Amino acid sequence: MNNYQQLEQLMQQLSHLNHLQAIANWDEAVMMPTGGGQARAKALATLQGLKHDLLSQKENGDLIKAAHDEKNLDDWQHANLKWIQKKYINATCLPNELVRELTQTSIECEQAWRTLRSDNNWKAFAPLLEKTFKLVKQSAEIRSEKLELNPYDVLIDEYSPNMSQSIIDPLFLKLKETLPPIIEKIITQQTSPIIPNGPFAIETQKQLGLDVMRTIGFDFDHGRLDTSHHPFCGGVPEDTRITTRYNNDEFISALMGIIHETGHARYEQQLPQTWREQPVGNALGMAVHESQSLLMEMQAGRSQSFMHFLSKKIREQYGDDPAYTPENLFTLYTRVERGFIRVDADEVTYPLHVILRYELERDLFNNALSISELPDAWDAKMNDYLGLSTKNNFKDGVMQDVHWPAGIFGYFPAYTLGSLMAAQWFAAAKRAHPEIDDQLAAGDFTALNEWLRIHVHERASSVSTQKLLVDATGEDLNPQFFIDHIHERYLKN
Amino acid sequence: MNNYQQLEQLMQQLSHLNHLQAIANWDEAVMMPTGGGQARAKALATLQGLKHDLLSQKENGDLIKAAHDEKNLDDWQHANLKWIQKKYINATCLPNELVRELTQTSIECEQAWRTLRSDNNWKAFAPLLEKTFKLVKQSAEIRSEKLELNPYDVLIDEYSPNMSQSIIDPLFLKLKETLPPIIEKIITQQTSPIIPNGPFAIETQKQLGLDVMRTIGFDFDHGRLDTSHHPFCGGVPEDTRITTRYNNDEFISALMGIIHETGHARYEQQLPQTWREQPVGNALGMAVHESQSLLMEMQAGRSQSFMHFLSKKIREQYGDDPAYTPENLFTLYTRVERGFIRVDADEVTYPLHVILRYELERDLFNNALSISELPDAWDAKMNDYLGLSTKNNFKDGVMQDVHWPAGIFGYFPAYTLGSLMAAQWFAAAKRAHPEIDDQLAAGDFTALNEWLRIHVHERASSVSTQKLLVDATGEDLNPQFFIDHIHERYLKN
Repeated sequence: MNNYQQLEQLMQQLSHLNHLQAIANWDEAVMMPTGGGQARAKALATLQGLKHDLLSQKENGDLIKAAHDEKNLDDWQHANLKWIQKKYINATCLPNELVRELTQTSIECEQAWRTLRSDNNWKAFAPLLEKTFKLVKQSAEIRSEKLELNPYDVLIDEYSPNMSQSIIDPLFLKLKETLPPIIEKIITQQTSPIIPNGPFAIETQKQLGLDVMRTIGFDFDHGRLDTSHHPFCGGVPEDTRITTRYNNDEFISALMGIIHETGHARYEQQLPQTWREQPVGNALGMAVHESQSLLMEMQAGRSQSFMHFLSKKIREQYGDDPAYTPENLFTLYTRVERGFIRVDADEVTYPLHVILRYELERDLFNNALSISELPDAWDAKMNDYLGLSTKNNFKDGVMQDVHWPAGIFGYFPAYTLGSLMAAQWFAAAKRAHPEIDDQLAAGDFTALNEWLRIHVHERASSVSTQKLLVDATGEDLNPQFFIDHIHERYLKN
Repeated sequence: MNNYQQLEQLMQQLSHLNHLQAIANWDEAVMMPTGGGQARAKALATLQGLKHDLLSQKENGDLIKAAHDEKNLDDWQHANLKWIQKKYINATCLPNELVRELTQTSIECEQAWRTLRSDNNWKAFAPLLEKTFKLVKQSAEIRSEKLELNPYDVLIDEYSPNMSQSIIDPLFLKLKETLPPIIEKIITQQTSPIIPNGPFAIETQKQLGLDVMRTIGFDFDHGRLDTSHHPFCGGVPEDTRITTRYNNDEFISALMGIIHETGHARYEQQLPQTWREQPVGNALGMAVHESQSLLMEMQAGRSQSFMHFLSKKIREQYGDDPAYTPENLFTLYTRVERGFIRVDADEVTYPLHVILRYELERDLFNNALSISELPDAWDAKMNDYLGLSTKNNFKDGVMQDVHWPAGIFGYFPAYTLGSLMAAQWFAAAKRAHPEIDDQLAAGDFTALNEWLRIHVHERASSVSTQKLLVDATGEDLNPQFFIDHIHERYLKN
């Protein structure tokens, strides 16, 4: 076995442990009784430690060095080696003490946040966030040297590979200038939908969801649909598990949530079989992942065409009703509203929520802003971008997201990068297959899925995000596709 | 940290990995879509390998030696050290090549058995079983030297600690002499029950099952009830998961299955909190475990007293019906029949199925019988003990159980040892708490559970099976309690 092959074997072993971790995480969110939590946390911490020990063994560094000189590695193997090296650097460059402290601090900060947020208590939360942020920044600075990236870029790249402030800044500037007047116009023009009249039994909602998943192409021999408090897509490519949450009063959000997670799941389920146990065979980070869910939800799922199919399916379950016409469903599913909460935002206002967070994070990392100044800075931007005041409303302002208390910085851009990519993929797919719109109206995802499989899913992490985009769409990430999509959907008439 | 404490730390780590293994196994049987099987098998094999590597590190042998000299170990720690040493010996005494071969061979044998059994094809199965048996015997012989036990006793002791042929032989001889005439008498005397008339909706059966679990004292904050093809009790003490399977035509067997598994679960859920991550805090093997499920099912669950409570619960779900009187339910739940299949057997004929298998295993290990002679030997004993011929009926004879093809020998005695223990525990509990019968009639398990907690559950593996019995019941394992129970239940009138 040569050096590279030894590394592949190690990665295979780690992927098996990741499998068990993914299933235990899914179980925790979906199945586990509350009393099982403490024992589960300890079991997962031990697994995490074992994985870290396996990865950070000193001889792996030597193997990586030697593997670089190996002849006959093909493109996928080269890319794989690059990912392995990155993993190894990230696992070994931080002092154990710092990792332990950061883990401990962010767990405590997140736990405190759960109560302090509902109490709207910024004052008690600020020092905990400060402590967490300092450790995240310290880690990013150490990794920055080894990975030769600016500290905040290290974090962006972790979730959205190959992305950086220099790429994101102009994209977000364009959106920041373009979206506010568009939003104003949409809100003035839009009509009110008829609200469907419940209750809607959960079992029926589930059948409807399963039906739509089958339509989109979810492989039930390799996956499941369940219920959890926060919807997510988990498990492993061979067994991809999505969740939603149901509300007796309405079926609109659970159904669209299922379509969103099915987009994530399709990506996982179509990753190349032969590379699944290697880093190069994983999904290419969170921005591309989000582009797959947003493509299914925002581009295909909420399109005027698909509403014809959805209307048919809904009427099959709930009978005829003026609320279930394709036109009314489209009005329901494309409502735009300025709101405080990111996760409740529609596709038009959502980017402004993300840009706000991105700019604050960037300023924190570049020492242009301190944690104590966050609430005022948040409020100023919220006024500026969405015309809303969050003065003294920390709960629905600076304290609303779990990311920062959990020590996650640099993740937010992925949502909007994913949104931009989704529009760009969809436009390219429709150029290649003009029949897609008609197919969606009939609940036929053949052409769209085939295009995604070839141009995104099967390439996994074998190329950079940029190359993936250029190969598939002929150009680098271009926000115009998203802007055109918004114009087309909301301002055509 | 002294030597003993280092071993405790290692055991803690292993128990965390066992947690993940238990949840993944449960998931495989209950949740996993079939397409996830291959990836799951690989993930679990890697985990198994890591566990073996951790346990068999050479320094553990030194730690064990040194820990034996450590002063101030209390009784639990001493017992724990003994278990750790046994684990270490079993993990290190076999050549890796033999372990690999046995694992591979038994997997192949079990897989082939699934088809060959339904084809009634002994001829093709025999050489595979022969190969598996030879490797099991070889392993037992190597372990025999290290553990200073006869080879077949090594296997018996693995599943039923401290049990051996010299203990089992007289117990089983007594049963073999006593039971056949009793069975004859019962079958002549017993009356026919009214069969409840279905269908019985599965959701209602589940509600009934959950209700009875709550009655017995199952802790739903630390456990669940689900559905699987083969009912089992899995998970971990902090999160104990039982399953049953439902049949639309009748609720009788699913309900009693739930009571059986709840008995297993109560044992797990009441293991001592502070020792759960150590071997001494585990259940004391399969015989004692089975005694807990059989106590709940056979002693308490099928008692005339409990039928009063069960009748009330059943009528709450299904309304009044002559089939649901306590008397008819008792007749239903105490039906005795000579049959071919062990898992379908009632409590009176069951021991004869086990004794037959035990005697054949014993003869195989003592070279008094060869694999090729098994079908004839099986048939002879089946005629002898139950008056049934299995000539050319391999499917329902020698090929009926998964144990042998899976390489599991020495397990069968645990079922009947458990059955004898169950009768002995129950008699002792009723001597201490004469109110138990009345309580069961009212669905009150307080006294019984309290007695079991103190005398069995909380002691975990801190003492030998013999000491557990003597301390709790005043004497060593005595089959008379079981025989008296059978007389009392079936031949009183």
